[in-house]
Amino acid sequence: MTQPIVFMLDVAPADAPEPEGGWAATVHRVPDGQPSLMATELSATRGDGVFETLGVIDGFAQAVDGHFWRLANSAQLLELPAPNLEQWRAAMQIAAAALPTDRQGGVKLVLSRGVEGSGVPTGWLIATTTSGDFPSRRDGWKVVTLDRGYRHDLSEKAPWLLPGAKTLSYAVNMAALREAARRGADNAIFISSDDYVMEAPQSTVLLRRGNTLITPKTDIGILPGTTQLSVFAVAGEWGFATEDRLVAASDLFDSDGVWLLSSVMLATPITEIDGRAIAVDRDLTDRLNDALLARRE
Amino acid sequence: MTQPIVFMLDVAPADAPEPEGGWAATVHRVPDGQPSLMATELSATRGDGVFETLGVIDGFAQAVDGHFWRLANSAQLLELPAPNLEQWRAAMQIAAAALPTDRQGGVKLVLSRGVEGSGVPTGWLIATTTSGDFPSRRDGWKVVTLDRGYRHDLSEKAPWLLPGAKTLSYAVNMAALREAARRGADNAIFISSDDYVMEAPQSTVLLRRGNTLITPKTDIGILPGTTQLSVFAVAGEWGFATEDRLVAASDLFDSDGVWLLSSVMLATPITEIDGRAIAVDRDLTDRLNDALLARRE
Repeated sequence: MTQPIVFMLDVAPADAPEPEGGWAATVHRVPDGQPSLMATELSATRGDGVFETLGVIDGFAQAVDGHFWRLANSAQLLELPAPNLEQWRAAMQIAAAALPTDRQGGVKLVLSRGVEGSGVPTGWLIATTTSGDFPSRRDGWKVVTLDRGYRHDLSEKAPWLLPGAKTLSYAVNMAALREAARRGADNAIFISSDDYVMEAPQSTVLLRRGNTLITPKTDIGILPGTTQLSVFAVAGEWGFATEDRLVAASDLFDSDGVWLLSSVMLATPITEIDGRAIAVDRDLTDRLNDALLARRE
Repeated sequence: MTQPIVFMLDVAPADAPEPEGGWAATVHRVPDGQPSLMATELSATRGDGVFETLGVIDGFAQAVDGHFWRLANSAQLLELPAPNLEQWRAAMQIAAAALPTDRQGGVKLVLSRGVEGSGVPTGWLIATTTSGDFPSRRDGWKVVTLDRGYRHDLSEKAPWLLPGAKTLSYAVNMAALREAARRGADNAIFISSDDYVMEAPQSTVLLRRGNTLITPKTDIGILPGTTQLSVFAVAGEWGFATEDRLVAASDLFDSDGVWLLSSVMLATPITEIDGRAIAVDRDLTDRLNDALLARRE
């Protein structure tokens, strides 16, 4: 990964019209290595904000609409001021265009509650490139299952637990990845306390069973997967049925393939879960990644 | 609240000896209003770090040992490099001394995993004063109980959920306070999914039952309370027995007083829980706050 490129935003209210100089005038590139956040930022002291990470292919930000829908939804769940999506779209284009076009990259965008006491949100973008080499898309990952502690039906009863919001409070997600590494695995799948498949710390779970592609339904308190939505959009053309449903943990072992889906890694086949081998569908893996590498609005 | 005063730390390894210029040379006051964090800080993008907030009375930081023990414990639970407590002690003294001595204040210290990819932790302190007026210590708070979603016995089985660590990932704690306000209350008490009292989003729960002061035991995945430890230390002199134990949610209503304890607010009596009046022990409330306002090593 090369040096990230950072842009700070003069965050506009949702209904603000485009300013005279255009939205580009509200997006400021930060000189490399220069601090741009206050130490009293509520993102840094409370994990209080939301984010999205978009894949960038040849300078084109992928699935912007899906990510922006989720950004707005996360902001609403946290009672943050609604984002001005036209402003974020302009900022995203600027950030994506700053990346070299010969490599795959990503842009993370952050909307935080802002400096404590200010009442004004802070927004920024971080553009990064990768080496262009994603061996995991072919070689796959070993994963372990980890208890997420919540029942699958908790979500509607306890909105203050922020189910479905992509918040900056990711300490548990990061700890789960360390636990996976400790067990010799590459990643983890969270299971509800009553044994349903939830999601991975940074990705969505996809299963194939015969002619059907399956993902856990999101009303169990997990994130709607933007990459998963792209997969379901093409699956019909390939002759697959698609299902969002409750997925029992045991279903992971009774499948014709399991993948983790995310915006930058794309589709990673799972080769092993908790030490048990999982069937890898190499043909479908390649088709998934080819489709995800194509331009997606 | 006046303008916060920020100090950045050149974070030293735990076993580093004091440098020639003294630890003070590693503590840098940030000019007011100047950014001091990188946009790629993992505190800001992942809530990945730990913190403590210490009360400051007349320029003296309270209960430093207790807070530093917890800081080190939180760092260990997150697999952060162990903090150099001598350095933090020096920094804490500098930050506390920067506050006016005629008002009560606080110092928040943050130890984050640092800038992404750097492998070097970031440390900073934020010193703030209050107006000196804490009407809640006398008037009390109305609280609501909120489901925390976790069973009380989850803690030892799922360390990746970071039970007992005071992490920067506080989005849920902040959302719980908003939910309380929405219900017309001042604060919240988290209850486990199997109906045991846990903690408040920013404080520890204390109950009185006759001659006994009771707090929920910490092996249910809650933070050890530094202010609660100070209370238990003096309670014996006052003729109280003390108990750390499982506390059923129904025990809240079968008590001779309930308080929330925290480093800056100190002891706040609870007047109402979920709309039901709670007996307020004004005499003990005053004794608690008088004791907590005295210097505590």
